Amino acid sequence: MMSATIRAATPADVGAMLALMRELAEFEKLTHLFIATEEGVHDALFGARPSAEALVADRDGKIIGYALFFHNYSTFLGRRGLYLEDLYVQPAERGTGLGSTMLRHLAALAVERQCGRFEWSVLDWNQTAIDFYQKMGATVLPDWRIVRVTGDALEQLASSAG
Amino acid sequence: MMSATIRAATPADVGAMLALMRELAEFEKLTHLFIATEEGVHDALFGARPSAEALVADRDGKIIGYALFFHNYSTFLGRRGLYLEDLYVQPAERGTGLGSTMLRHLAALAVERQCGRFEWSVLDWNQTAIDFYQKMGATVLPDWRIVRVTGDALEQLASSAG
Repeated sequence: MMSATIRAATPADVGAMLALMRELAEFEKLTHLFIATEEGVHDALFGARPSAEALVADRDGKIIGYALFFHNYSTFLGRRGLYLEDLYVQPAERGTGLGSTMLRHLAALAVERQCGRFEWSVLDWNQTAIDFYQKMGATVLPDWRIVRVTGDALEQLASSAG
Repeated sequence: MMSATIRAATPADVGAMLALMRELAEFEKLTHLFIATEEGVHDALFGARPSAEALVADRDGKIIGYALFFHNYSTFLGRRGLYLEDLYVQPAERGTGLGSTMLRHLAALAVERQCGRFEWSVLDWNQTAIDFYQKMGATVLPDWRIVRVTGDALEQLASSAG
């Protein structure tokens, strides 16, 4: 099996990436929340005001994995960080170190860009992923929880602004 | 007591904001992690490539609270979101609805900018905050955990990139 190349995504990768994003939503049992479109992803990565960046794992022209990330900011550190929104490798391609290679690439990018932290999220039942991240030197924060307002609740909160 | 005005932060607010950031770190028992400087905050908010934006609560020229936020991105929604990094109101100024007013302002901004989500984090022992957020329509995600690589572990992971 040829090894894959990790490279920055290009506009030509958007269709393949969207298919992998949908696979990831299936794995996370969250397809009911998946409403991304090719136009939306294209715009986010390559539009006039990009919201995110991506790496792809390319094996002989086939995209078999991707990492999508953006910068966050920590007031405590007074510096931006690198936040990994998605890391996905197709099931049949796992076990060859691709996920780990992408994480190392991103860590190097974070250091190069003088980020104080490299962060992402994990579902607390995904022990395989947790073990994998911890082996790489990552810490799973035990006490922080994500708070979210979306959909109708967001509209309602917004409309109550003075 | 005069009521406070919520407005976008300006470069003249940076010193007062940094003092409040330090107070927040004290409240969260995280001062050992607090290394932000006035220059760093200025650069993040008003530099050539801003990483974040801020609102301040200004009562007659005194900054008594602030909210610092940036955009994140959800591949599931195919849209950016608004992420609130810090929300702080000085203890003596609480109970007058300032925190809630800032959250409503940010929700309105999120809707105006067509964000799919408005998110932030909370410490799981901070029940007062959790109750307050839930009353406003927010959901605390039970199963997501934040994973972090920082300091020496980040340098080490970066240096192992091929």
